[in-house]
Amino acid sequence: MPGGLSLSGLGTRRGRAIVPTVRRLARSDRVSSMRYLHAMVRVRDLDESLRFYCDGLGLREMRRIESTAGRFTLIYLAAPANPEAEIELTLNWGSDEDYGSARNFGHLAFEVDDIHATCAHLMTMGITIHRPPRDGHMAFVRSPDLISVELLQKGAPLPPAEPWASMPNTGSW
Amino acid sequence: MPGGLSLSGLGTRRGRAIVPTVRRLARSDRVSSMRYLHAMVRVRDLDESLRFYCDGLGLREMRRIESTAGRFTLIYLAAPANPEAEIELTLNWGSDEDYGSARNFGHLAFEVDDIHATCAHLMTMGITIHRPPRDGHMAFVRSPDLISVELLQKGAPLPPAEPWASMPNTGSW
Repeated sequence: MPGGLSLSGLGTRRGRAIVPTVRRLARSDRVSSMRYLHAMVRVRDLDESLRFYCDGLGLREMRRIESTAGRFTLIYLAAPANPEAEIELTLNWGSDEDYGSARNFGHLAFEVDDIHATCAHLMTMGITIHRPPRDGHMAFVRSPDLISVELLQKGAPLPPAEPWASMPNTGSW
Repeated sequence: MPGGLSLSGLGTRRGRAIVPTVRRLARSDRVSSMRYLHAMVRVRDLDESLRFYCDGLGLREMRRIESTAGRFTLIYLAAPANPEAEIELTLNWGSDEDYGSARNFGHLAFEVDDIHATCAHLMTMGITIHRPPRDGHMAFVRSPDLISVELLQKGAPLPPAEPWASMPNTGSW
């Protein structure tokens, strides 16, 4: 319905105005093949980052680009179930810049088969489970460069189990 | 090849050790259905954010969750070509926290059909093109909350064209 009025959902959700809905649909119709590619994060230690994202979380390295002229390495990682959406790790060679951490970017989220097993595996690697999966549903960890990562249990929450059920939060995420 | 040795790619890329490659493949095989869900960003003004992400970039609103108890709104946006990878906008009601901006998170990247047309559309909306598509291939803009967004031309670069070819960078991204 290019440029037209979509009535679906109007008035069914609080705080949603009619005009932005119409405007958004009209615009979206004109760019229908726009595609999500990746989220890029800057890293300072490739080995440590690959240990976290690949050994820990289970992402796979899809390809890497090294630029001697630009003095950077790009590594593209993806989750096995939908490898089209990538995480791009950027290493700037020789940089000692403090990349810091802020709150405007929140987190990257992944669905896992068994959130208890995933968190147990991460703990054995020495990775802090900042928000343990007390509810069998959700956990948060952070990358070596302080990128928050949310893990969500696939399907229904797992029955709460120790050591998670009584484990407090650690720090922020 | 669970737990086994993969020889593919070994020795073909500089700086990549054998041991981490084996370790990563072995781990990945154990979590084969892990799935990328979303990148979450915190926003302070929903209308302004939807104007940028939907009216401007062409993302579509897939669903929204409003929690009166938690005093937050979550809006899930996606690109039409691969809507499974979402952007989650989080609005914390009544928050005046300065979410800031840092360099550990780099950007979100999208592929577009016509990077010149997309940037022209964004400019007419008053959005700064921080890195104009001088090469017909790549551009950067920033969200109202300072999330950098990379736009990449689908397929081959477009022939360089004005006003982009001679347009300088603006600020940082």
